[in-house]
Amino acid sequence: MTMGTGNSFGRTFRISTWGESHGGGVGVTLDGCPPRIEITREDIQKDLDRRRPGQSRITTPRDEADSVEIMSGLNPENVTLGTPIAMLVRNKDQRSQDYLENDMNVAYRPSHADATYDAKYGVRAIAGGGRSSARETIGRVAAGAVARKILTMYNGIEVLAYVSKVQEIGTENVDHDTFTMEEVDSNIVRCPDPDAAEKMLARIDEIRKAGNSIGGVVTCVARNVPAGLGSPVFDKLEADLAKACMSIPAAKGFESGDGFAGTLLSGKDHNDEFYIDPETGATRTKTNRSGGIQGGISNGENIVIHVAFKSTSTIGQKQATVTREGNEVELRGKGRHDPCVLPRAIPMVEAMVALTLVDALMMQKAQCELFPNDSQMQPNPMGSTEKGRGVSGMTTGGNTRQRIDEE
Amino acid sequence: MTMGTGNSFGRTFRISTWGESHGGGVGVTLDGCPPRIEITREDIQKDLDRRRPGQSRITTPRDEADSVEIMSGLNPENVTLGTPIAMLVRNKDQRSQDYLENDMNVAYRPSHADATYDAKYGVRAIAGGGRSSARETIGRVAAGAVARKILTMYNGIEVLAYVSKVQEIGTENVDHDTFTMEEVDSNIVRCPDPDAAEKMLARIDEIRKAGNSIGGVVTCVARNVPAGLGSPVFDKLEADLAKACMSIPAAKGFESGDGFAGTLLSGKDHNDEFYIDPETGATRTKTNRSGGIQGGISNGENIVIHVAFKSTSTIGQKQATVTREGNEVELRGKGRHDPCVLPRAIPMVEAMVALTLVDALMMQKAQCELFPNDSQMQPNPMGSTEKGRGVSGMTTGGNTRQRIDEE
Amino acid sequence: MTMGTGNSFGRTFRISTWGESHGGGVGVTLDGCPPRIEITREDIQKDLDRRRPGQSRITTPRDEADSVEIMSGLNPENVTLGTPIAMLVRNKDQRSQDYLENDMNVAYRPSHADATYDAKYGVRAIAGGGRSSARETIGRVAAGAVARKILTMYNGIEVLAYVSKVQEIGTENVDHDTFTMEEVDSNIVRCPDPDAAEKMLARIDEIRKAGNSIGGVVTCVARNVPAGLGSPVFDKLEADLAKACMSIPAAKGFESGDGFAGTLLSGKDHNDEFYIDPETGATRTKTNRSGGIQGGISNGENIVIHVAFKSTSTIGQKQATVTREGNEVELRGKGRHDPCVLPRAIPMVEAMVALTLVDALMMQKAQCELFPNDSQMQPNPMGSTEKGRGVSGMTTGGNTRQRIDEE
Amino acid sequence: MTMGTGNSFGRTFRISTWGESHGGGVGVTLDGCPPRIEITREDIQKDLDRRRPGQSRITTPRDEADSVEIMSGLNPENVTLGTPIAMLVRNKDQRSQDYLENDMNVAYRPSHADATYDAKYGVRAIAGGGRSSARETIGRVAAGAVARKILTMYNGIEVLAYVSKVQEIGTENVDHDTFTMEEVDSNIVRCPDPDAAEKMLARIDEIRKAGNSIGGVVTCVARNVPAGLGSPVFDKLEADLAKACMSIPAAKGFESGDGFAGTLLSGKDHNDEFYIDPETGATRTKTNRSGGIQGGISNGENIVIHVAFKSTSTIGQKQATVTREGNEVELRGKGRHDPCVLPRAIPMVEAMVALTLVDALMMQKAQCELFPNDSQMQPNPMGSTEKGRGVSGMTTGGNTRQRIDEE
Repeated sequence: MTMGTGNSFGRTFRISTWGESHGGGVGVTLDGCPPRIEITREDIQKDLDRRRPGQSRITTPRDEADSVEIMSGLNPENVTLGTPIAMLVRNKDQRSQDYLENDMNVAYRPSHADATYDAKYGVRAIAGGGRSSARETIGRVAAGAVARKILTMYNGIEVLAYVSKVQEIGTENVDHDTFTMEEVDSNIVRCPDPDAAEKMLARIDEIRKAGNSIGGVVTCVARNVPAGLGSPVFDKLEADLAKACMSIPAAKGFESGDGFAGTLLSGKDHNDEFYIDPETGATRTKTNRSGGIQGGISNGENIVIHVAFKSTSTIGQKQATVTREGNEVELRGKGRHDPCVLPRAIPMVEAMVALTLVDALMMQKAQCELFPNDSQMQPNPMGSTEKGRGVSGMTTGGNTRQRIDEE
Repeated sequence: MTMGTGNSFGRTFRISTWGESHGGGVGVTLDGCPPRIEITREDIQKDLDRRRPGQSRITTPRDEADSVEIMSGLNPENVTLGTPIAMLVRNKDQRSQDYLENDMNVAYRPSHADATYDAKYGVRAIAGGGRSSARETIGRVAAGAVARKILTMYNGIEVLAYVSKVQEIGTENVDHDTFTMEEVDSNIVRCPDPDAAEKMLARIDEIRKAGNSIGGVVTCVARNVPAGLGSPVFDKLEADLAKACMSIPAAKGFESGDGFAGTLLSGKDHNDEFYIDPETGATRTKTNRSGGIQGGISNGENIVIHVAFKSTSTIGQKQATVTREGNEVELRGKGRHDPCVLPRAIPMVEAMVALTLVDALMMQKAQCELFPNDSQMQPNPMGSTEKGRGVSGMTTGGNTRQRIDEE
Repeated sequence: MTMGTGNSFGRTFRISTWGESHGGGVGVTLDGCPPRIEITREDIQKDLDRRRPGQSRITTPRDEADSVEIMSGLNPENVTLGTPIAMLVRNKDQRSQDYLENDMNVAYRPSHADATYDAKYGVRAIAGGGRSSARETIGRVAAGAVARKILTMYNGIEVLAYVSKVQEIGTENVDHDTFTMEEVDSNIVRCPDPDAAEKMLARIDEIRKAGNSIGGVVTCVARNVPAGLGSPVFDKLEADLAKACMSIPAAKGFESGDGFAGTLLSGKDHNDEFYIDPETGATRTKTNRSGGIQGGISNGENIVIHVAFKSTSTIGQKQATVTREGNEVELRGKGRHDPCVLPRAIPMVEAMVALTLVDALMMQKAQCELFPNDSQMQPNPMGSTEKGRGVSGMTTGGNTRQRIDEE
Repeated sequence: MTMGTGNSFGRTFRISTWGESHGGGVGVTLDGCPPRIEITREDIQKDLDRRRPGQSRITTPRDEADSVEIMSGLNPENVTLGTPIAMLVRNKDQRSQDYLENDMNVAYRPSHADATYDAKYGVRAIAGGGRSSARETIGRVAAGAVARKILTMYNGIEVLAYVSKVQEIGTENVDHDTFTMEEVDSNIVRCPDPDAAEKMLARIDEIRKAGNSIGGVVTCVARNVPAGLGSPVFDKLEADLAKACMSIPAAKGFESGDGFAGTLLSGKDHNDEFYIDPETGATRTKTNRSGGIQGGISNGENIVIHVAFKSTSTIGQKQATVTREGNEVELRGKGRHDPCVLPRAIPMVEAMVALTLVDALMMQKAQCELFPNDSQMQPNPMGSTEKGRGVSGMTTGGNTRQRIDEE
């Protein structure tokens, strides 16, 4: 639970987002960014373009360029000053009349946030869902792009997500060590398994044409994460990742490693046995059912998580509901909405995971790397995940620091 | 992400736990407890007794009375002063020699936290797993008992968990509106469905005798939670609950409402339609696939979550692993461990949910109830869950406050 | 110590500022604002106008309208939504060439922040001092205006500051119960004692003409603050106020009540004896040497604090310094700077005090007013300060709440 | 403002204290301590012994050994595990009857915290002042001893305080570069200027015999603090130090560097000019009116602060007050109290300064030292304070890290 009342995330690498769907715009302030990092507007815009509406027929037709303006925190050479980086996207294509013309302004949309926002705040920002709109995630994705840059610089850490399930249609043969963002973005579903992607797309189209909506699962992999990240007992890495991902609109489930499926296995079958990588000398696990996290701390293997997204609540079909005044009515949604939230959720999940990892990295630096780690004390703790790249060094606390000094 | 480095939870109702499995003891300090609440040692001990080891043949045989000492925060009449409540349990039956006699002190236990703790901190507290031991949860459960008391006083809020799955064996016919703690505790599995409990117990015994361990799912229900709790966009109620529950040892998955299963439904089928309760006039939902949370805010229906627990990693069978010095060896666990963590996880999950709810309640009070809510502005937002008890009032922000004033 | 890395302030009523002196602009996001508060752009602009440069001959000649744009958090009727309020002021009159033309870009200004910013971040935002510029306080003042509105609504709480000393020239006869903002703003020094103001102005003019700068003391009074605010032991009200005020540029000292002068008195002479106000029945103190805060908690009397501001470091006279490369040189400041920071510090101090009080109010609501305070338990704790207004009620925890309900 | 409701301090190096004057005891939990630090019970006890009551005739006669028990966070070799360090001191010599026998249980002590605690919490812990007692500072001092150890290890940082004024009697000729703890502790006033100490003692004795109490000023110096600590704009080092010190019981004023006296100087006279230290090549300041902090960031010179302590409120003379029921009465304090709080405040101030510095160090590590600082970018930023020790290296961000790696 971050400080303030819900609009900030992170401890040392910390974002605060603001903005409603139909107000002046949306934005984010990133506090705690390391100084001396080169960041260009294009670094940010690239991820925003993957998130923006109107990308394809299966996302909302709202047309927004989502062009970002960086207001502070960089010097004229695009180098971070260590001061807050404020970023701003103005709203353009709002069409509030879609909301005002019909009874969406009085009736609560079933399973939508407007009823609960009203219960909480006693005042409504009806048009576009106000702050509950997915538009709010622009700030997360913009800051996530900065996090991504830092992770790459630090240890070549990559954070990649993909659509792994649409309803019951799942992927097969996605190799978590090797799949690329290009493969993910090669189809509009954002699924790197082409056969599955085709079936998913057919299902989404079917649902879309019926004025209905559809959900599924996003899987996210983080590679080259050093061992040692995560702060037990409450800020375990998987607890922080769970919070990060469950805060994305429409998220209703989270798994770390094998998650719910893993509960079907006995301890003997679920445990990841250790071995010494003959090439690198690193301590590795033979399997990765833990998803790269044990005891709430990264172990150097791929971090693998899954996030369940429910179908979007706003649909074109009639539903029973009640008005604010307490009258039972029928409602059919207008406005422009995503039939399937999953493709646009990819950069959101990547952003939240990247933000969480940079924050964990900085906290590890603060607590456990104030002093050098004596090499005799820690000869061979946990291994590296970089199999094919000839990295033989350790990726743990103290050693990571020493490796960086060599860079 | 709480402040500090991982050992505190909550914003205004905030716990900090300390202690290792084989040190002087374990404890918790609760900061932010409302003043003028009557708390007895027995209130605390009752929940600790449900958590303690040695309860039955399916839990660890370590014998600890886990007798709590309240060190501060109460006046002689057992009334809270509003100052920190420190609670302490000393360790008794430690038997560190179980750990020192064999090679557990040098080899890493597969899927256990000892390797990652070593990677993070560069120093090991081998005996008993140190801080990663389930013994750490004593502090959570003790503070959770205070939270439970406050929830009851505030609105008759009840938080009840039960074992809903052991491997693939699931419950049927558990009515979330009516099941009781007595029913849950009527068998050693802590499952209120007697038929399922019997099958679960048979499976656990089988695994236990084989020196293996077993996992499953815990379901938790919170009744009578007022609408309006949770702070979008990052501290959504389900995000905070996810973090709370994913921080419990061995948790690997979290669902809010229908979770992963809900992704199989279209929007039309998943949405919870609204209606007006004819008895109370409250706005209610016909179904509860959202699990009482929409847009990250409680809607007054039962809150329902599910937590996946993997099998415990320490087993009596041989496994391949490596030593700290980097040698590949075989390891067979000694020490005393739970073949099935689920029955003892029940009070842990309840505690984490209760702590999260009190904190959300206090934050709602702080932000949204500084001023009275004008009744004309908010005539009938979201309904009460108290079907049979003749409660016709609203349970939203401002109205809750007014209702409380009448108590 | 707030979360993040220094650019946020407050727990539940929490601001995050961003922006440099010579970048795109400066701004603030306010998280945790109560919903249903009416806020107009004029409410904000009024305080910004008191802070802006170019007001008079004794402040910096930089010409900025400091026109605020409210980007989010309000509905079209200017009512707060309970979501973050983002506010933005673009920079206009930057003249970075003043800085680049001479050697300010290489030499460190004595006692200025540019050397230490360089030491900390390893990168410089030379022009205008970057983030260390007083321009950063725009965000504080904008959010402070919202805080002021809430304080007025809550209990008619007023926060008023004035210049009480310029070097050794001090005020006499300022009645803390009655002086008004109009009196403060009636002269360009912002001192409500006209005789002292005249002498102060003469001194400032003398220093200004010599190309030098001058410091002094600002006193701030908060009236009608209810008893009970402040959270011992670390977030005592005076500790939070100290932090708030010491974070303002050029602040070097803080006093609560009689402060340093109070140390000259014995306990017998310093203690504020209690009496019962015959008119209201309230418990009051005969004197107010404590400055309205005892044991770190407000007691219902006027809160009185003093803040010492050093002379601004940038002056027009020659000074010895060194360059970044380590060469000893002489430097004479160009750019446009305040000869006397005090008049513009008035709205800054008021803002920081108001922000601190709203946050304390919300924390008190969260912890101590979740449940009603039994009147038998607390018949007559601490008194009201509203002497002439016929308020006979209590202003403590539970009673405050009841009084508010009557409003 | 720290999270929780006032009983925690720090961001990454974070303490939470608990305990009342007349309860089971007092204690502290330290979260975020770096692992692999050797800490003995004696390290802690030494500072507690300087704080404990009953040391001399000018402190309270309450007799407490204040023997500390370390409950967690160390391995059997006294090496920190990186997990929370819980420390506990049981109360012994309580004599609550001193409080119950007379009317202290009904009448509010003038200027004492008991009236405001009652206003805030609606319940009283009368005996010994409950949580407002100086006994609460045991936890601060115990954790401060750990901080002191870390500071010494990191850079030979020393934190030393002394009594610089008793009423108007001040020190002369205390050299901030060279005075020692032995000199401070050489007399019971804790003043390293023997002539001043003698006069102070005479004054304290005079006041003590009259049943009265007396206040003064404590000065604290921190040597060898690297440049770069402190996080503008809200967590400036002097703002955090102000909060830290103003949270100590009886503190009513705070100054950084020349503080209030500095406001009498013009900018020209107050500015600290830079020069290059011919021996070390470091950038230094000729004077230190800034007290080692500029722009809220340490500059490598001695950090110098002053804290004003009012006379203790409980005295043996009669005073007018009111009872809880609203009756005007006369009160004469019993119990055992310090006639002069200053000597025992020395370890408290040192502890709060040390805790603040370690936290700032860890935050600097987290944000600004994730990546190495390119030496070409930062050839000679700010200098070292170690004049006579032949240290020629830099003490800024990146360079500090490199220097440490060489140790």
